[in-house]
Amino acid sequence: MTGKVTGSSKNMMLFTGRAHPALAEAVAKELKTDLVPTTARDFANGEIFIRFEESVRGADCFVMQSHTQPLNKWLVEQLIMIDALKRGSAKRITAILPFYPYARQDKKHLGREPISARLVADLLAAAGADRIVSVDLHTDQIQGFFDGPVDHMHAMPILTDYIKSKYPMDNLAVVSPDAGRVKVAEKWAHELGDAPLSFVHKTRSNTEANKTVSNRVVGDVEGKDCILLDDMIDTGGTIAGAVRVLEEAGAKSVVIACTHGVFSDPARERLSECGAVEVITTDTLPQSTEGWDNLTVLSIAPLLARTIHEIFENGSVTTLFETH
Amino acid sequence: MTGKVTGSSKNMMLFTGRAHPALAEAVAKELKTDLVPTTARDFANGEIFIRFEESVRGADCFVMQSHTQPLNKWLVEQLIMIDALKRGSAKRITAILPFYPYARQDKKHLGREPISARLVADLLAAAGADRIVSVDLHTDQIQGFFDGPVDHMHAMPILTDYIKSKYPMDNLAVVSPDAGRVKVAEKWAHELGDAPLSFVHKTRSNTEANKTVSNRVVGDVEGKDCILLDDMIDTGGTIAGAVRVLEEAGAKSVVIACTHGVFSDPARERLSECGAVEVITTDTLPQSTEGWDNLTVLSIAPLLARTIHEIFENGSVTTLFETH
Amino acid sequence: MTGKVTGSSKNMMLFTGRAHPALAEAVAKELKTDLVPTTARDFANGEIFIRFEESVRGADCFVMQSHTQPLNKWLVEQLIMIDALKRGSAKRITAILPFYPYARQDKKHLGREPISARLVADLLAAAGADRIVSVDLHTDQIQGFFDGPVDHMHAMPILTDYIKSKYPMDNLAVVSPDAGRVKVAEKWAHELGDAPLSFVHKTRSNTEANKTVSNRVVGDVEGKDCILLDDMIDTGGTIAGAVRVLEEAGAKSVVIACTHGVFSDPARERLSECGAVEVITTDTLPQSTEGWDNLTVLSIAPLLARTIHEIFENGSVTTLFETH
Amino acid sequence: MTGKVTGSSKNMMLFTGRAHPALAEAVAKELKTDLVPTTARDFANGEIFIRFEESVRGADCFVMQSHTQPLNKWLVEQLIMIDALKRGSAKRITAILPFYPYARQDKKHLGREPISARLVADLLAAAGADRIVSVDLHTDQIQGFFDGPVDHMHAMPILTDYIKSKYPMDNLAVVSPDAGRVKVAEKWAHELGDAPLSFVHKTRSNTEANKTVSNRVVGDVEGKDCILLDDMIDTGGTIAGAVRVLEEAGAKSVVIACTHGVFSDPARERLSECGAVEVITTDTLPQSTEGWDNLTVLSIAPLLARTIHEIFENGSVTTLFETH
Amino acid sequence: MTGKVTGSSKNMMLFTGRAHPALAEAVAKELKTDLVPTTARDFANGEIFIRFEESVRGADCFVMQSHTQPLNKWLVEQLIMIDALKRGSAKRITAILPFYPYARQDKKHLGREPISARLVADLLAAAGADRIVSVDLHTDQIQGFFDGPVDHMHAMPILTDYIKSKYPMDNLAVVSPDAGRVKVAEKWAHELGDAPLSFVHKTRSNTEANKTVSNRVVGDVEGKDCILLDDMIDTGGTIAGAVRVLEEAGAKSVVIACTHGVFSDPARERLSECGAVEVITTDTLPQSTEGWDNLTVLSIAPLLARTIHEIFENGSVTTLFETH
Amino acid sequence: MTGKVTGSSKNMMLFTGRAHPALAEAVAKELKTDLVPTTARDFANGEIFIRFEESVRGADCFVMQSHTQPLNKWLVEQLIMIDALKRGSAKRITAILPFYPYARQDKKHLGREPISARLVADLLAAAGADRIVSVDLHTDQIQGFFDGPVDHMHAMPILTDYIKSKYPMDNLAVVSPDAGRVKVAEKWAHELGDAPLSFVHKTRSNTEANKTVSNRVVGDVEGKDCILLDDMIDTGGTIAGAVRVLEEAGAKSVVIACTHGVFSDPARERLSECGAVEVITTDTLPQSTEGWDNLTVLSIAPLLARTIHEIFENGSVTTLFETH
Repeated sequence: MTGKVTGSSKNMMLFTGRAHPALAEAVAKELKTDLVPTTARDFANGEIFIRFEESVRGADCFVMQSHTQPLNKWLVEQLIMIDALKRGSAKRITAILPFYPYARQDKKHLGREPISARLVADLLAAAGADRIVSVDLHTDQIQGFFDGPVDHMHAMPILTDYIKSKYPMDNLAVVSPDAGRVKVAEKWAHELGDAPLSFVHKTRSNTEANKTVSNRVVGDVEGKDCILLDDMIDTGGTIAGAVRVLEEAGAKSVVIACTHGVFSDPARERLSECGAVEVITTDTLPQSTEGWDNLTVLSIAPLLARTIHEIFENGSVTTLFETH
Repeated sequence: MTGKVTGSSKNMMLFTGRAHPALAEAVAKELKTDLVPTTARDFANGEIFIRFEESVRGADCFVMQSHTQPLNKWLVEQLIMIDALKRGSAKRITAILPFYPYARQDKKHLGREPISARLVADLLAAAGADRIVSVDLHTDQIQGFFDGPVDHMHAMPILTDYIKSKYPMDNLAVVSPDAGRVKVAEKWAHELGDAPLSFVHKTRSNTEANKTVSNRVVGDVEGKDCILLDDMIDTGGTIAGAVRVLEEAGAKSVVIACTHGVFSDPARERLSECGAVEVITTDTLPQSTEGWDNLTVLSIAPLLARTIHEIFENGSVTTLFETH
Repeated sequence: MTGKVTGSSKNMMLFTGRAHPALAEAVAKELKTDLVPTTARDFANGEIFIRFEESVRGADCFVMQSHTQPLNKWLVEQLIMIDALKRGSAKRITAILPFYPYARQDKKHLGREPISARLVADLLAAAGADRIVSVDLHTDQIQGFFDGPVDHMHAMPILTDYIKSKYPMDNLAVVSPDAGRVKVAEKWAHELGDAPLSFVHKTRSNTEANKTVSNRVVGDVEGKDCILLDDMIDTGGTIAGAVRVLEEAGAKSVVIACTHGVFSDPARERLSECGAVEVITTDTLPQSTEGWDNLTVLSIAPLLARTIHEIFENGSVTTLFETH
Repeated sequence: MTGKVTGSSKNMMLFTGRAHPALAEAVAKELKTDLVPTTARDFANGEIFIRFEESVRGADCFVMQSHTQPLNKWLVEQLIMIDALKRGSAKRITAILPFYPYARQDKKHLGREPISARLVADLLAAAGADRIVSVDLHTDQIQGFFDGPVDHMHAMPILTDYIKSKYPMDNLAVVSPDAGRVKVAEKWAHELGDAPLSFVHKTRSNTEANKTVSNRVVGDVEGKDCILLDDMIDTGGTIAGAVRVLEEAGAKSVVIACTHGVFSDPARERLSECGAVEVITTDTLPQSTEGWDNLTVLSIAPLLARTIHEIFENGSVTTLFETH
Repeated sequence: MTGKVTGSSKNMMLFTGRAHPALAEAVAKELKTDLVPTTARDFANGEIFIRFEESVRGADCFVMQSHTQPLNKWLVEQLIMIDALKRGSAKRITAILPFYPYARQDKKHLGREPISARLVADLLAAAGADRIVSVDLHTDQIQGFFDGPVDHMHAMPILTDYIKSKYPMDNLAVVSPDAGRVKVAEKWAHELGDAPLSFVHKTRSNTEANKTVSNRVVGDVEGKDCILLDDMIDTGGTIAGAVRVLEEAGAKSVVIACTHGVFSDPARERLSECGAVEVITTDTLPQSTEGWDNLTVLSIAPLLARTIHEIFENGSVTTLFETH
Repeated sequence: MTGKVTGSSKNMMLFTGRAHPALAEAVAKELKTDLVPTTARDFANGEIFIRFEESVRGADCFVMQSHTQPLNKWLVEQLIMIDALKRGSAKRITAILPFYPYARQDKKHLGREPISARLVADLLAAAGADRIVSVDLHTDQIQGFFDGPVDHMHAMPILTDYIKSKYPMDNLAVVSPDAGRVKVAEKWAHELGDAPLSFVHKTRSNTEANKTVSNRVVGDVEGKDCILLDDMIDTGGTIAGAVRVLEEAGAKSVVIACTHGVFSDPARERLSECGAVEVITTDTLPQSTEGWDNLTVLSIAPLLARTIHEIFENGSVTTLFETH
């Protein structure tokens, strides 16, 4: 046959945007590699400039970004990085979004609304992403918004392992802060020794954001050590209200657990003072425990590192879900 | 300017597959039009042949199909109809799926599974559908699986109007048969005079279909006339089990309500004998009350007809959601 | 350079739908491998559930399905399998359709018809297939319906080798059952020692399926051992009619040969009794010789296995067409 | 409702490339309109420049081009015209290719060949064509190469009307020049009073173009006035050879009919001298009867004009196929 | 024909993002219409929520956004608005970006960089934009980044009309601040009475933004009233440096003119103090003359309004370019 | 794991169209490989036939074509070759266009024009090209017309090295023949020892091709050895006019340098007689020095060979830009 034949190898490269470099560095350290040196800066008018300092040609590229504030800027930065990789002949581009932005806008509540969570998937695809890795999507169906592989990781084992190591399991109750997350709470209840399950029956206004009216607990929490869980906590209003309702319903104590601690103002204040014994979260978004005594931050980096490793080595990430 | 100018008009045409022509005829009657004459038949080996007997060029086409058994055949038939419209120069093609098939497979439960609900949207798009109309999708997020307008209609007002007209509202309780539909039940509770809300805490096996283990009611149903609701009832195992649990928990009576009465064997038997006072459903799928005394079928045709009318006239379908 | 470099290998995985597992097993045996364990079952309402029991990440995947009755179900099953592979990060997905469904609807006969053979290609692409393998497409042009590689294999050498081994070649005549396949018959005539060529001049109704009016033979068949060939035989009406016309025209004997023995009712009866000495076909579709004495089934598995091998090893499949 | 509402009209505009403006002018005249003034010229290095002298915004645009020599240039010119219309905000773009170029390369004969007829469809789509109109495609399946409406017109009625008006029908025979067009010849035979049908059994080399080996007639032509037909005649070698074989087989006379008279050298010489009584063709390509006495050119312009009219007015073109 | 026929009309709707509502209001006023009422707000974590208060079904929608700081937020907001229109069944969506963001990143300067200006076009297309309107793109080629109509408007006539009305034309010289815009300056020179042309020969560092080294004037400016022009002025470093070089070269006075006054810090200070007689710009971005005496802002609204009018009415925008 | 695992290798194959095989052979020689044997010929009517004589399955394919006259033919030939590779299962297809055709039509000058340079990118993508390699694009922005990697090589180092080796650098001046290429000339000036820079201020008619009106030099060239450069020279009118203007302005001598010597008639005559000391170009297009004494042709083959090598080996091509 005419032509030249040569051996083949594959090369993993890890990149990070500027939103949360500490997480990417922790992941790189777990993987025993380094982040690819990248020039990233803002022009005076806010346009972002990106350049990678090494050839990415033929590489299996993983682009991490945490979608904290200013969220839209970090989203655009990640899209620009992906475009640069595509035009630089990367072989495969995996976008890693530990916290998937706009996940709450996953449907039209009323007419003439966007489905921004689908839009995010479309934008990633338009820029050139071949696959997505995320953690605890607001709804599982977001996987279906992307026309390609989505590795949807779960932080539950990290959170429940911590809870099991710290709190006695014989008096636990699992509580969902609203009707929409009872299904997830059911999994936690199973994981925490088939703990009893309840939820807070509330009304949330569709047209005014972040305002909710909590009312009463459905299920029995009297005398229980309640684990109140959510995928994300933004301003903390719902959760703080739920703590109050649980206390009124006779709960002995409340521990709050969430994967994504967005903690927009005034969350820190609300959650510090709401009466919860402890607030447990992960570092999918940058966190600071300074001045917030009862906040515990568990690291998501080992989970992400193992996921990247398995993707690169064509292994299975399903086993990473298994609890022990 | 060179060329020919002429006035412009627009033309609505309504088509139906062979799965449930009675529903399409009812819709046509509401719209004061006729179904477009269509040749549809099976070749000996099962291949479907379609030909429209009138020109569809430039028309605003609506293609109805109900996804009852044999479901895959009717899905392919609808795709073939859409392809024929596309190649026949239809101006716009709206696929109407009163019951969206594969809606339950809207996420990967474990690794290496399809997201068949997204696949259905992709197949409709590949065939040439410009937009979709459906009723009570299993999850709202399925709207985001299609890259175009999805008009997602709700049967709740039809069902709750009937309930309100028939049952006294002062003793009602609303019950979700599992943890995943508590959110929807909350809306029903609100609609039914802020009735108390509860759900059945159960375990469903991911890997063996249609087998569930119901256990106990979370919430208070004692002495209540319970409205047990679901988007769809397939074999009826979950629902019949829920009726039993409700009775054990002291419910005074149970009425079952669902939008999509799939009623695969042995649903008719189970639901007839489960102790429920009445089973209420709609005709998104073909229904027969023969030999099933406590089954009530409400017609979805007026809702679909008004939706088609508003789409054709560029009106708003949002108002169709509003309760009265 | 920053990052991790590792050696590269490639992995072939073979999957089958439920339509004709025996063929896939025969292919796997030829390839000295096993079929990938797959969970496939129907939900009560006819929806299909698929899950692969092993990771498919990075693999070169081949998905076999035979499109026998219920044909639309098996088509949808194959699409779902392809979707699951795409979402499970398969590297490359090859759909193998030994008998390409809807191949006869490869053009619009009249206006407002679908081109279902193109639609099938579009659906495979929408699901995620990267390439297609098929055998004896109804028309060669179907290759062009798919925007990617199509390996179009031919069963002729298998069939003609058998004929040459069994029948004396000095009195053969090759006959096409209709005007549309004279071109293919010409190739057979060349392969069978430049045997004389003729065809049956008939009229086929466009709008009523499977009904044909055969009339007379164009070409000389008197005293000849006729090989009557077709790509597929469905109900057998055309072929049985052709046998009759050949006998009336003085043929000494008739042998029927086809690649795809669809044999819808009443083909078995018709062909058993039509007077043909032997009916030869392959197992692109499941076949049974039980109660049909003059049916001979040749295996297509070695051809498919060699094709898969060459695709995986980046070899040439063109050589597989060469006769010996 | 906020905004501005105004009446709606639609505007047809007809454009032509430089290959065969006379045909476009004839079509415009039939439609009682004018061609849109267009600047088209070649830069010194052969690049084509196009500019339309009127706004095309919102118009229903029809772009005619005849693919005569230099064929590739005219193809690129048509693509550039379509691109200009797309970027100029045309509402809908219909590409009219009376003779579809590369129609013969509609499949892979051996491995590693293009399917250029599909490529042409893809290029038209990439440039921005919404639909295609063509006449007597080499194979009907080419319709399926384009992902949109293809109006496939037939010149047969024009040709057979002329034959019926000029030649006595009681002694006609219809002859296909090769095995591949017997199907089409069968339709002509039916149209010409169920005339007897035959074909020339020949061998064509796949790898050396335009060289064929004709051998013998299958069917009876002795004493007949033969109508020898083809979709296109290129160098005329096959057809001239067929005339010779027919004469050797005792034909009384031969008339040649084809839709597309490509007539590459030395076709004019060959066909003038081959012994055929008359050569009948159409003006899908530019024709000249100068110095070729027995060439008759029928105009395709009325058929194209009626097709454009029906497309613009959303009528049916199917009726244009009907014979009278 | 079966179906319903009704008259057709078309409806224009104008929307604005939150970046620069004053410009959109001015455009609406010119068009004698109102902006469509729109709910737009930020969730606590920075996610944007959009809902239109009126049905957009079937409307010809124009979505204005000015890409001022925070630029990435306003870009994402416009994408979300477009997605909402697409899902709300708008007939056609035109994105209006008076200042096209990331226009400077229109090529790769070195390897492994993005082409962000192309990415912006891809994102608009992915969200659902059918066409784009912009003013004075950094390079004309950006039109080719979008696969659809781009109406590229020019502010030059607005700026030169003002200059001609205020300054005597007999002593003008036109100066490009760098080698890359000499071509544009040539057009200005022609428009301003064939004024003499020159440019500043400078060196710009590719890897450090906004830092330039100006050196000398090529061309003669001694004793001239110089019009120093650019498409956009960001921090003003280049322009202020050019003023200095012009003064050193003996210019009598300098007037600065640009379409897009980005004026990032410290532009206001630099340009106020650089010695220029006047700085002229437009309101493609929000401007304030407060505390900046020699800044003149001309309105772009009439140009945008006429463009929208012509697009809606299928007129020609080319005439809008013509100078008077 | 089920399946077969085998080692992986990669294979480079180099192909050429018929426009300029000598360049491809020179590249192959540099790469120490051979061109893949390819059958390419014209059918009598001008249709092109392509077949590769070896399997291309799984190969990394590079397809060279030089776009000389007849330019549209060679463009279509390259598209057909790419289609054949795609359908033959090539792994990756790189189109190499040393001279990018239609590069000058990279924007709409007036309304209703194509952007043919974008169209070329779209056609390459539609045919199946994964990436593009080109040399000295007319404008850098053409990189952004293709949705994938574009390796844009520069011939400047080849040309300036030659100039530096032949001409004394202390009296050089760099001249752009028009206002649009001053930016490029600035880079040459820097490379040639910060030589002084000037340009010819001219007027070019948009609507009549190849006619220009040169007038005067901006900048000082008196007594200088001028390097007059352009990316391409077509008929040579602009350049020859520029030489005249330079001489009138007192230039001591003029050397002309361009990457792409299109040299359409009457370029050879014009440039031979225009008074330039030497005309330097490369062989991106076929060149002949016969009868043109002062023409020097430098080979681009080493640059292309190194580029292909780096792409195949996943190296960096950025280093190839670096001057020495």
